[in-house]
Amino acid sequence: MSPAALVSSDAATTVMVVVCLLLIPLAIAGIALINTGLGRSRSASHSMLASLCAVSVAAAAYFVCGFAIQGFAGGPAHVITAAGKQWNWIAAQPFFLRGLPLDGSPTCLVLWLELFSVALAALIPLGAGLDRWRLGAATASTALLAGLVYPLFAHWVWGGGWLAQIGYRDAAGGGPVQAVGGLTALAMAWILGPRRGKYSTDGALPAAIPGHNAVLVLFACFLAWTGWLGLNGAGAMLFGGAPIGALVRVELNTTLSAALAGLAAAAITRGRFGRPDASLCANGWIGGLACSSAGCLFFTPAVAALVGMVAGALVVFTVEWLDVYGEIDDPTGSISVHGVAGIWGVLALGFFAHAGAPVQPLAQIAGVATLLGCVLPLAYGLNWLLNRVSPQRVAPEGERQGLDLHELGAGAYPEFVIHREDFLQR
Amino acid sequence: MSPAALVSSDAATTVMVVVCLLLIPLAIAGIALINTGLGRSRSASHSMLASLCAVSVAAAAYFVCGFAIQGFAGGPAHVITAAGKQWNWIAAQPFFLRGLPLDGSPTCLVLWLELFSVALAALIPLGAGLDRWRLGAATASTALLAGLVYPLFAHWVWGGGWLAQIGYRDAAGGGPVQAVGGLTALAMAWILGPRRGKYSTDGALPAAIPGHNAVLVLFACFLAWTGWLGLNGAGAMLFGGAPIGALVRVELNTTLSAALAGLAAAAITRGRFGRPDASLCANGWIGGLACSSAGCLFFTPAVAALVGMVAGALVVFTVEWLDVYGEIDDPTGSISVHGVAGIWGVLALGFFAHAGAPVQPLAQIAGVATLLGCVLPLAYGLNWLLNRVSPQRVAPEGERQGLDLHELGAGAYPEFVIHREDFLQR
Amino acid sequence: MSPAALVSSDAATTVMVVVCLLLIPLAIAGIALINTGLGRSRSASHSMLASLCAVSVAAAAYFVCGFAIQGFAGGPAHVITAAGKQWNWIAAQPFFLRGLPLDGSPTCLVLWLELFSVALAALIPLGAGLDRWRLGAATASTALLAGLVYPLFAHWVWGGGWLAQIGYRDAAGGGPVQAVGGLTALAMAWILGPRRGKYSTDGALPAAIPGHNAVLVLFACFLAWTGWLGLNGAGAMLFGGAPIGALVRVELNTTLSAALAGLAAAAITRGRFGRPDASLCANGWIGGLACSSAGCLFFTPAVAALVGMVAGALVVFTVEWLDVYGEIDDPTGSISVHGVAGIWGVLALGFFAHAGAPVQPLAQIAGVATLLGCVLPLAYGLNWLLNRVSPQRVAPEGERQGLDLHELGAGAYPEFVIHREDFLQR
Repeated sequence: MSPAALVSSDAATTVMVVVCLLLIPLAIAGIALINTGLGRSRSASHSMLASLCAVSVAAAAYFVCGFAIQGFAGGPAHVITAAGKQWNWIAAQPFFLRGLPLDGSPTCLVLWLELFSVALAALIPLGAGLDRWRLGAATASTALLAGLVYPLFAHWVWGGGWLAQIGYRDAAGGGPVQAVGGLTALAMAWILGPRRGKYSTDGALPAAIPGHNAVLVLFACFLAWTGWLGLNGAGAMLFGGAPIGALVRVELNTTLSAALAGLAAAAITRGRFGRPDASLCANGWIGGLACSSAGCLFFTPAVAALVGMVAGALVVFTVEWLDVYGEIDDPTGSISVHGVAGIWGVLALGFFAHAGAPVQPLAQIAGVATLLGCVLPLAYGLNWLLNRVSPQRVAPEGERQGLDLHELGAGAYPEFVIHREDFLQR
Repeated sequence: MSPAALVSSDAATTVMVVVCLLLIPLAIAGIALINTGLGRSRSASHSMLASLCAVSVAAAAYFVCGFAIQGFAGGPAHVITAAGKQWNWIAAQPFFLRGLPLDGSPTCLVLWLELFSVALAALIPLGAGLDRWRLGAATASTALLAGLVYPLFAHWVWGGGWLAQIGYRDAAGGGPVQAVGGLTALAMAWILGPRRGKYSTDGALPAAIPGHNAVLVLFACFLAWTGWLGLNGAGAMLFGGAPIGALVRVELNTTLSAALAGLAAAAITRGRFGRPDASLCANGWIGGLACSSAGCLFFTPAVAALVGMVAGALVVFTVEWLDVYGEIDDPTGSISVHGVAGIWGVLALGFFAHAGAPVQPLAQIAGVATLLGCVLPLAYGLNWLLNRVSPQRVAPEGERQGLDLHELGAGAYPEFVIHREDFLQR
Repeated sequence: MSPAALVSSDAATTVMVVVCLLLIPLAIAGIALINTGLGRSRSASHSMLASLCAVSVAAAAYFVCGFAIQGFAGGPAHVITAAGKQWNWIAAQPFFLRGLPLDGSPTCLVLWLELFSVALAALIPLGAGLDRWRLGAATASTALLAGLVYPLFAHWVWGGGWLAQIGYRDAAGGGPVQAVGGLTALAMAWILGPRRGKYSTDGALPAAIPGHNAVLVLFACFLAWTGWLGLNGAGAMLFGGAPIGALVRVELNTTLSAALAGLAAAAITRGRFGRPDASLCANGWIGGLACSSAGCLFFTPAVAALVGMVAGALVVFTVEWLDVYGEIDDPTGSISVHGVAGIWGVLALGFFAHAGAPVQPLAQIAGVATLLGCVLPLAYGLNWLLNRVSPQRVAPEGERQGLDLHELGAGAYPEFVIHREDFLQR
């Protein structure tokens, strides 16, 4: 099996992949901005700085050991023999990319895609930990995600690992990027606990804590869209073997998925609350992007639109469900947007992709089971350990002050007058 | 005649077109941000959400029926016989893109370009309807624009229609995107009427209502520039048959046109008011981009710079003229920026392009006459009908509250303290 | 010698260069936003408008005479005979790009890269002159930079000039773009003098004047990263002769350099002040990008990471040193970020690049000596003359009011309530 599924390694194909890779930082910028805009102004600088540090640490950790663990299909790996078959479970590449020629081969393009993908995945838990996650702890947690958890699952999916062996397919990371990020966000929301004042003990509905800048949030949806065109395009070519011309399908599907998800969120929030909700529409749009990653290459446009529409609905309902019934405080809806919609995209690929193998649904379900049964416990366990070593949550005083003042010593908007009264009960 | 003017469909050319297409979302993001920044803070979230919904609806409507109406040169179409000649006036493609292979052929690249272009065009009227256009009505109006008005004119220009038959040329949408958007903006400004408090009955000058965030507006100029490089590049290749190397000319012209238009606006506002006006400079810069779309491939750089300079001047003067003498309230200057500058670009192509046919000026004038004589009445008529079905303008109470609170139930900046006093007379 | 170092001018290579060029405006947008976010809210609109005007004027001046002075390797030039050898010191191209075919040849791709690079360089001094540099004077100063100073040094490095003759290497402008910009920023900081209230006469520490929007600053770091991937990629191909596949190395190095520089700045500010400083982390990240420009093609990833780490440290220490001991008021740290880190990158290429010639360190030191001995005096002298013709600094009244109100007649955020008390002593 070749290092990656690229159907051809001629110059034009390489250029097309590189182009897509060059756009991914815009998705990273978009997610950072959405997290920040959906948080409070007193933690805005902290949120952006945490994003910058998380991207930096993720890149460094992936460079040091992540790629060694992930490897590539056909590369050196450790196997376990079970049921009479050899199961490839972890790569055995040298650390620090030693011996990997950076010459434009599919293998090193995969490295590049993964380095940027892991940086994107690292921002997803930051959204769930908003307004209470210490910068140092978030950085350490990111190192574990980018150096161990992400590469392990990505190896199984894209590195010739056992999920690839049973036929699991994922063009651009609905599972490895979106769902891994979203489930890590869930683990962090559990470990950190809800924000001060979110849930009262008298059985009232949880407080709504609106984001401090809806314009940045909605603007970031457009940026994320641009970046996702790159992300899905690169993945479809490197992991799906899409030729250049198939990018038209990939990008059309990505766009229709986001568009219909956004419209579904608008329609549902309007139906339920009488008014469309700007934050949930943004969440829906990004959920449409997240759910498009797995199947963008394999759907027809109409199916992509429908899958996106369902993702938009799922995001709206699960955000509310997690908030009200799950008592899980996820300020940006990361768990729903990336976790739920990502998993939905993985499953949809199994059921609705044209020209899929007959066992495709089973393989995709096995992938989701692995996410829930291995990745989530692993992410939870590692972060629980980290929390024992040094508490991940900021001191109550810091949360009252805002993380900007407490951890950075300066607010994000020192010249603007900010409301100091606290949020209202719903 | 081939589906599109692409001189070659080799892999490198396809990659170059795809790259340009991938950048267009940044133009969309830029225009959304400009509209929002030039509006009031009490409608900022609404403006961004309307942009997201308009893009989504435009993409969906174009997918459903827009492309069926627009078609492509050489595709199935209906004709009218007049003056002994067959005039192609509407395409006859199947709905939902049925039967269109998404394989990277010029035809499907045209589809992709048009899907993004119509999303861009859909944002232009939003600027004119700022602070008073209901979200639901704006969405419905966008569906009419993207599903009917835009595809019809685009068919005439790019789909082998009668304007193409008489020799009208337009590389990247000075007519179909910019002028169609700008004239629809004019129709909406007429139908919606001016904002409350804009014009008094005592003959005083109209009130100046400054935008709420000049930084976002000027930042968006840079983003729009980036996106326009993609838009003009893709159009020049797909509709102008430009080879890869000609992109240098296209992008240099685009940049010089925007630069000189911005400088012209700065110089004129400084000359007239004693100080350069930041909003009008942004308008001038975008006007320079809008006027570059038609002729970017056909001008020398010096001509592009001069055409841009005139566009910057036209924008400044027509913004003032429409505001003061026309009593047309266009908060973002969309009519001037996209309509007037777009039409100017279409005409300039006729008069100043090197190597144009001798009848080029007449063909371009016919295009402009069609815009004013067909597109504007059609856009006005459809939106007038829509207004009869359900009023497009928000209730006076909603305008007083601001659209964010009235239609979305939450402001864009809940933690920032906002001035509540109203704007001043000039 | 060929016009540029492109190893091949086949279509795919041309497309790859064009793609990189198309991303550079995002670096420009990023630097404009960083400058503005690190300034005060009362000059925010002015800062963005000055950026738009500077980009416009730089493009126009480079189009008119800049390229004529810079030329390209192998083009017509004037020579001086010294030490028995002919030294090429200025190009002799026609003005207004006359006779230059815009057909995708390496020469016209170089023109395009330089036009965008000079626009980027023009923004660097704006950062140093924040809150006190008149718009008209800044525009005139930019014309001198883009029309004379920049092209002269760029000719020496990239146009076949004498630095190229002695073996100086610079892939993407560590010297010509970053250091020229940073040293011009130093000249402007000297000529304009510190902001009112920055230094007291009683020997107290200089006042800290925090930027007004840390979110925009940190967001812009991501945008600048995206743009820099394009800048370094285009430079590596056009001036370094990198084949398409080598972009993997270039972009990995760029990313690791920025990441490690950002982390170094976070660690050092945390160590020194007890808390990481958001502005200095942003400065460090951009410093990592600036220092990567010279050597991105020539380093291994591990070396790029180390060079970036040192750049991050250098930025933090020199920002403090210039502020406290140098009494040079550089509100955005441009001198350190672009000047110091850019020079560090140029030197690092000499000492740590693999496969460099034995005299590489000497050639790089000669380049730095030229920057300090020729470019800095020239930039200082020209701006000193300009200052004699018409004062570059705004009147004290204007500085008190803020440049927005004084020079543009309107603030950037008219609806937000802004603190009016002045900044505090440290």
